[in-house]
Amino acid sequence: MKLATFDYKGETRIGVVTDKGIVDLAAAAPSLPRDMVALISSDKALAEARAASAKGDAIPLADVHLRAPVPFPGKVLAIGLNYRDHVEESGQPMPEHQVWFNKQHNCITGPYDDVALPAVSSLLDYEAEMCFVIGKRCKHVPKERAHEVIAGYFVGNDVSVRDWQLRTNTWQIGKSFDTHGPIGPWIVTPDEVGDPHALAIKCWVNGELRQNSNTKHLIFNCFDQIAHLSQAFTLDPGDVIFTGTSGGVGAAMKPMQFLKAGDVVRVEVEKLGYIENRVVPEKAETIIG
Amino acid sequence: MKLATFDYKGETRIGVVTDKGIVDLAAAAPSLPRDMVALISSDKALAEARAASAKGDAIPLADVHLRAPVPFPGKVLAIGLNYRDHVEESGQPMPEHQVWFNKQHNCITGPYDDVALPAVSSLLDYEAEMCFVIGKRCKHVPKERAHEVIAGYFVGNDVSVRDWQLRTNTWQIGKSFDTHGPIGPWIVTPDEVGDPHALAIKCWVNGELRQNSNTKHLIFNCFDQIAHLSQAFTLDPGDVIFTGTSGGVGAAMKPMQFLKAGDVVRVEVEKLGYIENRVVPEKAETIIG
Repeated sequence: MKLATFDYKGETRIGVVTDKGIVDLAAAAPSLPRDMVALISSDKALAEARAASAKGDAIPLADVHLRAPVPFPGKVLAIGLNYRDHVEESGQPMPEHQVWFNKQHNCITGPYDDVALPAVSSLLDYEAEMCFVIGKRCKHVPKERAHEVIAGYFVGNDVSVRDWQLRTNTWQIGKSFDTHGPIGPWIVTPDEVGDPHALAIKCWVNGELRQNSNTKHLIFNCFDQIAHLSQAFTLDPGDVIFTGTSGGVGAAMKPMQFLKAGDVVRVEVEKLGYIENRVVPEKAETIIG
Repeated sequence: MKLATFDYKGETRIGVVTDKGIVDLAAAAPSLPRDMVALISSDKALAEARAASAKGDAIPLADVHLRAPVPFPGKVLAIGLNYRDHVEESGQPMPEHQVWFNKQHNCITGPYDDVALPAVSSLLDYEAEMCFVIGKRCKHVPKERAHEVIAGYFVGNDVSVRDWQLRTNTWQIGKSFDTHGPIGPWIVTPDEVGDPHALAIKCWVNGELRQNSNTKHLIFNCFDQIAHLSQAFTLDPGDVIFTGTSGGVGAAMKPMQFLKAGDVVRVEVEKLGYIENRVVPEKAETIIG
């Protein structure tokens, strides 16, 4: 099942993507939650959504605006240095431990929405990633049970501001600019994905192939990641995890290639679909209240 | 004005702390929001709370259980290496740029609640900090206007798991264990604080003074912090900022002194009050759903 959050006729809705389009769950199954996090945290609601989607009317995809499937996650965590070729191009030693940072949840944006070229930097870069979302509140999850807590997978771009990222050891702020976490196009549930660690992942900039790898190359796979994080803290439904990027980022090219206004970045993951975002200059206005 | 979140008669409430006790705003001003973030993000609601607190009945402090004033912030950000003596004891170079990390919002706990000694580490440490909470959604805030977006100040302990923190350059996971962000005892509004950069800050472990500094020694002050962060991303009402710790942490003592089960850590900041938390061993159970 493919679960989308979308705008239609002036309202944000959740629905099931079928061959015919999107089945609006508010119409097809009015008793279901109207919020994606509530939907994916309930096995019963998911089963009802599946049944309703088989018989509901579909809205053509062209008539909706897709939003991030989880528009405002509680936490957004991302692992760095998690593909061997990316570790090598970064000039870093192979990590002994999982290297984590947060992206602020404000960075999450839609699969085809614009990404901002910040007023304060011109070193904007892409990182094609597979993402997943947590469906069950959990703590101390053993690796062999980690698949139970994943509600589904989708495509993400861990957009990075390289000067802000690399000028402190914690990387944090350069990974967290507003709009720098486009995700989507929708959540694909685990039954449709099969093995999440056997998916081709590619990134193009203006049609030029820049990254070309496979999730089988993850150093720490999705289940390792959940086992590790949940030793420290509770994971909640709606938490989003970025699983790392392969070699081929712009900062590692010779000469380095950063994203410019007007560039279009496309990230595609086998079975999950693609996201495509245009770079637009930020309007850096003071907003207070 | 002092704003508290508290449990009383089986319900979580918000109120104003006065000389006589806590005025429950649900009773004294029933039309006000019941949620602290909604209250602090409205100047009108704050004015009504102030008026109501002058005439409402007070519940004795001893009869309530104080919770974290903001029990579940959207974001929790913390700055590292922000007092000169702590930078020196850490053996790090003086930072040119602000060094930020996130604490997961799950770590937030009450001012007198227990702090967990993790199952996976025995290198538990304290960091006494002044904290503040954002009251207005904001972006690109100039330093000279940063005071406008602060709803108030309180005490925090940036509890740290040193092996998990220091084994990767990003620090992240060792700063984010559940219960490792006690804050409180309540929000003190800026009018009562005056200059936030002239407050004594102290930490005791089992009555022994370990940290003894003043917020005048902050390398990057609260307003610098807001100006920096808001260049990158939106700050929202309820976001909590930990402003850094001074010298005297357990990991820098000779020999090193880590927290053990039963230890009591007290952090006090002039004008803001104190928090006091007992260390208890974590029950490391698998929780799924």
